[in-house]
Amino acid sequence: MTTPRAGWVDGLQFCNWSRTTFEQMREAGLSAVHVTVAYHEAFRPTVDRIVAWNWRFREHADLILPGRSAADLMRALSSNRTAIILGLQNPLPIEDDLGLVAVLHELGIRVMQLTYNNQSLLGCGWQEAEDSGLTRMGREVIREMNRLGMVIDLSHAGERTAREAIAASARPVAITHATPASWREGKRQVSEALMRALAERGGMLGLSLYPHHLRDGSATTLAAFCEMAARAAEIVGVQRLGIGSDLCQDQPDEILAWMREGKWTRAAASRPPLAFPPQPEWFQDSRGFANLAEGLRAAGFSVADAEQVLGTNWQRFFRAAFRPAFEGGE
Amino acid sequence: MTTPRAGWVDGLQFCNWSRTTFEQMREAGLSAVHVTVAYHEAFRPTVDRIVAWNWRFREHADLILPGRSAADLMRALSSNRTAIILGLQNPLPIEDDLGLVAVLHELGIRVMQLTYNNQSLLGCGWQEAEDSGLTRMGREVIREMNRLGMVIDLSHAGERTAREAIAASARPVAITHATPASWREGKRQVSEALMRALAERGGMLGLSLYPHHLRDGSATTLAAFCEMAARAAEIVGVQRLGIGSDLCQDQPDEILAWMREGKWTRAAASRPPLAFPPQPEWFQDSRGFANLAEGLRAAGFSVADAEQVLGTNWQRFFRAAFRPAFEGGE
Repeated sequence: MTTPRAGWVDGLQFCNWSRTTFEQMREAGLSAVHVTVAYHEAFRPTVDRIVAWNWRFREHADLILPGRSAADLMRALSSNRTAIILGLQNPLPIEDDLGLVAVLHELGIRVMQLTYNNQSLLGCGWQEAEDSGLTRMGREVIREMNRLGMVIDLSHAGERTAREAIAASARPVAITHATPASWREGKRQVSEALMRALAERGGMLGLSLYPHHLRDGSATTLAAFCEMAARAAEIVGVQRLGIGSDLCQDQPDEILAWMREGKWTRAAASRPPLAFPPQPEWFQDSRGFANLAEGLRAAGFSVADAEQVLGTNWQRFFRAAFRPAFEGGE
Repeated sequence: MTTPRAGWVDGLQFCNWSRTTFEQMREAGLSAVHVTVAYHEAFRPTVDRIVAWNWRFREHADLILPGRSAADLMRALSSNRTAIILGLQNPLPIEDDLGLVAVLHELGIRVMQLTYNNQSLLGCGWQEAEDSGLTRMGREVIREMNRLGMVIDLSHAGERTAREAIAASARPVAITHATPASWREGKRQVSEALMRALAERGGMLGLSLYPHHLRDGSATTLAAFCEMAARAAEIVGVQRLGIGSDLCQDQPDEILAWMREGKWTRAAASRPPLAFPPQPEWFQDSRGFANLAEGLRAAGFSVADAEQVLGTNWQRFFRAAFRPAFEGGE
């Protein structure tokens, strides 16, 4: 591991949170991390998850703080702490109530996926047979998220829903954690056309380090990952590229069933237990960012460009995205 | 009706809200009104009530705005609008979760009663046979409300719970809507000892105009009410006195059963229907404040003292009370 740097950002983590995970963020020089608060939780249990974060913010105030605004992100940098940006991978927490978008925004949620694998009230996820695109409510929610300054995340969206959301949103959107389909085939990965559409509107692509998103899974080398990043930069522009590790550190394997199946299926009854794949040895936890820095340099990124990918781009994107539209947000 | 004055405050209303009720607040010169969001609603339905207020704030932004801070109260004055202060008459919305106090504070709740008539998780209401005082959770919640800047309201508390809460709170508390027991006998009214204890710690007494709190009910005269106010001022000090009308304008009679009985009893099945008593003719709606101004003067209040009772006291109290303790709140 090299010397920690300030100002790096992880565009998505879902760890089994502990003081250790926060200490490792500090050791890694992460100034901000977008974390997943809910997958298949409706509104009420989502509030319980937010309450748990509120207590964490008080208990570990020396390491972390809520990341809700540009000012918070800058305060994290100046106080050597990590701004935690709360996000939802699924729109289930807003149920069918447009008013809950503002309620969850007020409680600190700053990122929300419109769909998580399955069809939702707003659009369609990548695992359905057919994606019929944005729904009527989906368009309303996008307008409300634009107004409030809540980032639209399309990581688990179907291709059509993703393209329609990019077009419908008045503000840039994000794919916080994914890899290019040209590198690892599959509908969960991002097509070149979608990458271009995202970047043309100022959107961000966070590159995932979850083994199922990597070309050779857990055995993928740092060099291969960083070469892929260089190709992605050629498509979206280096200023649209970040890291969204999808790190699920210290999670018990049982959580995988919750992430994939929630309560909408009983598939668990008739399949072998699921298990997390091992992380690549060069990205075991947040401190792997130091390896990414070295790898990006070796893949030809300049020092300045590597810094952009490792943090500056997300910093710039989130600072603008969190500004409410009525306060002159982009 | 005399010319409307700016800066008056109503310490409690629970109307059937409409553009008309807000227009009447403006006509009355009310710069702030504390409104009841929930009686017997648990957390989830309370959020629905808050969402309804969020839409009202957007729809009637020319008349009202959320009153959450000293800055909001001053903005209301400078923009000729009414700051709406959201409050709960019952602690049921926090269920048994200390963390929900901060969640509801974040959603805009600035006042909460510890008990509503019945025994609660925090203490005891005035209608139980025996009041065993503040509970363990009650003391935790008071500490959290003190920290956040949420006003403790004891209007429906039992005498012992009220006195223990005044003693336990590090910051002044309020009885937002009540009358002195020396004027109309009954446990719902406030004893002289409690009035003194409240005022000694800087607390506020809001005088109610609900007929069941008035000496002669609906027939009570303006002069009798204002003479009572003058006696109350002698006990608590004029600077601790305000108005909390308990106005339930345009409510259907059925709402009375909800207020009194919620879902905790089936008494409704075996009693005649309840009905709201008629308001005194001199206080039919918010515009009755003009009559109060005249009545207070006639009862011997100076112009300056009448202004204090009609608004300045609540303004001063709420501005200080809403400041979070960690930002140097009293």
